[in-house]
Amino acid sequence: MTRYRPADLVDFTAALFAAAGMDGDKPATVAELLVEADLMGHDTHGLNLAPNYLRELENGEMRATGDPEVLSDHKAALLWDARRLSGVWITARAIDEACNRASDYGVATVSVRESHHIACLAAYLTRATNRGQVVLIACSDPAVATVAPHGGLDPVFTPDPFAAGFPTEGDPILIDMSSSITTNGMAGRLRGGGEHFPGKWAQDHAGNATNDPRILFDEPKGTLLPTGGHDHGHKGYGMALIVESLSQGLSGDGRSSKPSFWGAAIFIQVFEPDAFAGRVAFNRETSELVSLCHGSRPAVGIEKVRLPGERALARKRDAMRNGLALYPGIVDRLEPWAEKYGVPLPQTL
Amino acid sequence: MTRYRPADLVDFTAALFAAAGMDGDKPATVAELLVEADLMGHDTHGLNLAPNYLRELENGEMRATGDPEVLSDHKAALLWDARRLSGVWITARAIDEACNRASDYGVATVSVRESHHIACLAAYLTRATNRGQVVLIACSDPAVATVAPHGGLDPVFTPDPFAAGFPTEGDPILIDMSSSITTNGMAGRLRGGGEHFPGKWAQDHAGNATNDPRILFDEPKGTLLPTGGHDHGHKGYGMALIVESLSQGLSGDGRSSKPSFWGAAIFIQVFEPDAFAGRVAFNRETSELVSLCHGSRPAVGIEKVRLPGERALARKRDAMRNGLALYPGIVDRLEPWAEKYGVPLPQTL
Repeated sequence: MTRYRPADLVDFTAALFAAAGMDGDKPATVAELLVEADLMGHDTHGLNLAPNYLRELENGEMRATGDPEVLSDHKAALLWDARRLSGVWITARAIDEACNRASDYGVATVSVRESHHIACLAAYLTRATNRGQVVLIACSDPAVATVAPHGGLDPVFTPDPFAAGFPTEGDPILIDMSSSITTNGMAGRLRGGGEHFPGKWAQDHAGNATNDPRILFDEPKGTLLPTGGHDHGHKGYGMALIVESLSQGLSGDGRSSKPSFWGAAIFIQVFEPDAFAGRVAFNRETSELVSLCHGSRPAVGIEKVRLPGERALARKRDAMRNGLALYPGIVDRLEPWAEKYGVPLPQTL
Repeated sequence: MTRYRPADLVDFTAALFAAAGMDGDKPATVAELLVEADLMGHDTHGLNLAPNYLRELENGEMRATGDPEVLSDHKAALLWDARRLSGVWITARAIDEACNRASDYGVATVSVRESHHIACLAAYLTRATNRGQVVLIACSDPAVATVAPHGGLDPVFTPDPFAAGFPTEGDPILIDMSSSITTNGMAGRLRGGGEHFPGKWAQDHAGNATNDPRILFDEPKGTLLPTGGHDHGHKGYGMALIVESLSQGLSGDGRSSKPSFWGAAIFIQVFEPDAFAGRVAFNRETSELVSLCHGSRPAVGIEKVRLPGERALARKRDAMRNGLALYPGIVDRLEPWAEKYGVPLPQTL
């Protein structure tokens, strides 16, 4: 497999975003976070998205320059209008601001409306956990609906991801999951390769559970199933309602206005454990959970019980040492942009 | 079925708790919230728990009198030591305090350590939604473990419930679910009646998925499965880690101290939408979600797509008009306590 130095990929991608018009620290921040997603193995939500972002910049759907508008600031509760700026940049900035505010007020919440797409939630979490803080992120795209409510056949929700980062005495716990069993990105990739979901994670237009991702693309279209599937999908349905209410409800950027652009309403929250029982106690208890999970006998066919984020951090360490093997086709799709903007392709290792 | 006036059940249960030594508003508050759970149909977590609570009061495991100790107060971030007081009373009080603080600061978080058991999370939600506010609750019992991590065979977690209440332009959305597919209470009830789970919601000690609740009670014991089951249980595993980290980590009341009493670490958070895009916008967007879900064509065998809480609120309205039909055996189990304390049984309708 072709491998690249992660820093070279960041420089390359940042040069493309700068050439496409992004100002200030936006090119570097977005490039770093997309490469971070690839480093962690979330390769549908890393550089895979860069060509789409470049296209959105070119056609003006993603705003390239300027700052969010602060619509309200109650110290520990903020509302920003992102004005369709890069969701990756705005999310990083909102988390950093929430970390600072949480240091002062214990907990800080930033609600963001009219953001562009925010990519991989897992990639942001260490911004807070490296500071000893806890972070929650939830986001949804009010313009998209591919997931049915439990018991229903028509799509209402996006996959509605949420993520949480928890410091421990060792590596942080990094959780990033969708309220649906699987995502639109995964469905598109499997369909492109003629593959199937590992389980019956979708249903056709009549409600028959299926592992065929084509039902999301071929008419009459089916839907992705909420977590729990037909057996106990009220769980994923509840999660989707929580994610959409916190992201779209608090920001006021929701489905009622029938938005048509590729975007996101975002909910971000950071906790400072020292405002509660303290960092030592927090890390002691999360580390105890890590020990208990690691100590649980693995099921047949499972090497060991892993914590969320454990495999991603191991992948990242390996890629930082040995180079990052990108998912096939990603650099190919960036080549026309590199040519257009006169940016040299990154060297392979 | 035998029906009771809800107010009579509240008076009866409050009289028992008062006779057992609870001071101040504790007997009435706990009685109201247990009956509220029954009114909503959550009948494993309503008056079904009253005999257990009376026994815990009698043997001193639940403290009957006094107040929580405020360990930290950062205005929008509080830590209370509940000193083993009734978790039902302390949760109601913490939510009311968080509602008041959220009015001032936008968002308020109360972390509670060393609480006794908190019963039905759904029963508390309208305390906040009736005020136009959003509430989240998560709790776990660090002394109990019946749920395995995904891929593991040994229990690490409690069912780890979390709940959310969202105001809309009409009825609120009331979500209350466990991170595991089902709960200890449901397992105990089905086992008692010789029944089975509707799906393979547990696994035996060797990891074979099963619908038999007896595997939780007979040696060698099995475990409850996290939401998603063997197919995609990394979802419920992530939810459990979020619930335990927020409840036990922030409060410092976790598994590391190997507590042995029946208790709870609690995470409570209230949002004031007016600190963000405002109540009108919030309710508009949640109402839009309600409309979209109601408008989704129902699957075969489903009458209509319902919102979480919809059936519970309908049940409650019916019971307020026509009397509450308690689950069989509940009053029988309270009879010895009524006799002991000289409290007359509630009249049947």
